[in-house]
Amino acid sequence: MPRYRITVEYEGSGFVGWQRQANGLSVQEALETALQKLTGETPRVQGAGRTDAGVHAAGQVAHFDLERPWPTKAIRDGGNFHLKPARVSVLDAAEAPDDFDARFSAIGRRYRYRILNRRGPPALDRGQVWFHGKPLDADAMAVAAARLVGRHDFTSFRSVQCQAKSPVKTLDRLDVTRDGDEIRLDVAARSFLHNQVRIMTGALARVGVGAWTADDVSAALAARDRAAGGPTAPPEGLCLMAVVYPA
Amino acid sequence: MPRYRITVEYEGSGFVGWQRQANGLSVQEALETALQKLTGETPRVQGAGRTDAGVHAAGQVAHFDLERPWPTKAIRDGGNFHLKPARVSVLDAAEAPDDFDARFSAIGRRYRYRILNRRGPPALDRGQVWFHGKPLDADAMAVAAARLVGRHDFTSFRSVQCQAKSPVKTLDRLDVTRDGDEIRLDVAARSFLHNQVRIMTGALARVGVGAWTADDVSAALAARDRAAGGPTAPPEGLCLMAVVYPA
Repeated sequence: MPRYRITVEYEGSGFVGWQRQANGLSVQEALETALQKLTGETPRVQGAGRTDAGVHAAGQVAHFDLERPWPTKAIRDGGNFHLKPARVSVLDAAEAPDDFDARFSAIGRRYRYRILNRRGPPALDRGQVWFHGKPLDADAMAVAAARLVGRHDFTSFRSVQCQAKSPVKTLDRLDVTRDGDEIRLDVAARSFLHNQVRIMTGALARVGVGAWTADDVSAALAARDRAAGGPTAPPEGLCLMAVVYPA
Repeated sequence: MPRYRITVEYEGSGFVGWQRQANGLSVQEALETALQKLTGETPRVQGAGRTDAGVHAAGQVAHFDLERPWPTKAIRDGGNFHLKPARVSVLDAAEAPDDFDARFSAIGRRYRYRILNRRGPPALDRGQVWFHGKPLDADAMAVAAARLVGRHDFTSFRSVQCQAKSPVKTLDRLDVTRDGDEIRLDVAARSFLHNQVRIMTGALARVGVGAWTADDVSAALAARDRAAGGPTAPPEGLCLMAVVYPA
């Protein structure tokens, strides 16, 4: 049974999230339905990251098996034909080894969180940025962000519903940069806890408005208590940019 | 009667264009309705550039008069409140001199045309880029673009419906750059003819696929005939970035 790996972009606003659910259309279901229409088979599509409702992807990776081999160009172009009008796009399709697993073979994930920091709400980027009307000090946020980089117990920065066995993760990168009215948080780790990026963003926004200091972020981390971690930033600013695999 | 100047962002997909029309909602009408709800007056909002249906703006400028003075912050924030859910945002409002005219005082306009050049259709930027699946040679496009910079008779590059008295314009800038899968055309002039940026883009896309050379672009310009200018690129890739006024 040949295995395929696809790279996928999607606008998360119209989906209940990556994962199949009874209460609405997921990205996974949209892809599985399109592949079924294309191939006549019923492949199960498994993604590298189970993004929440409203969260976007520029480089989600998934794998699936087919009983009969298909040309990878036909998977990409035929998949995109059958995905219409859903805002999901197959950017690339490739054959993959039998032991490739989009989720468990991944050795890195990169996310970007975009904050629009100005007085007027977003017209062009609506649904793809967190609109934050109050001024944010990006430099102070960058300094505080450094407190979270490294290997830590991130209990304060994960959803109480998070099902990961261990709250200990190594955060490789958390860069905060301003480009005009937009503040970007570029985050990288081998893997993340549920809502980790959004809760870290919520905490750093508190620093940005001056309500918290960098020491408050360190104290929140040390508390190992979700109640100490600050608010969860909304999903629409978050985008899964890329998944990294061994060369 | 106090005069105000506003800077406006909008997503053009849902509008019949900037200018009021009987057949659907224009950006001008959306702004006039919001200002009417805010002030109780019926101001006429006049824009610097009459963008077509589907064309976006990140920095459109407009002016209007009110009978009674209003705080500029209230115009911005109250205007945005009453604009919802239209994808129009007032980024800034300021008092303006009586002789300020958004259109006729302008000494420069900057547009950007975005082409998404990859095999997969846009999911994140749908409606805000021209999706061009065939590979484009951005370097060849940049070389050909230089043939259009300067003072020329742009008859070949204006709509046959264009009502400007003279087809002679001075194009100050036409830069073509690639950033990953995206090709950007950054264009600047004191003013433009109707559809000029979209027709120039259509001609340069012919160069990008190898159907035209830079000499063919020069020949099209010299022909002074719309039929020689090539196809009109679709509206969704175009965005009015900024309008320039004397300091």
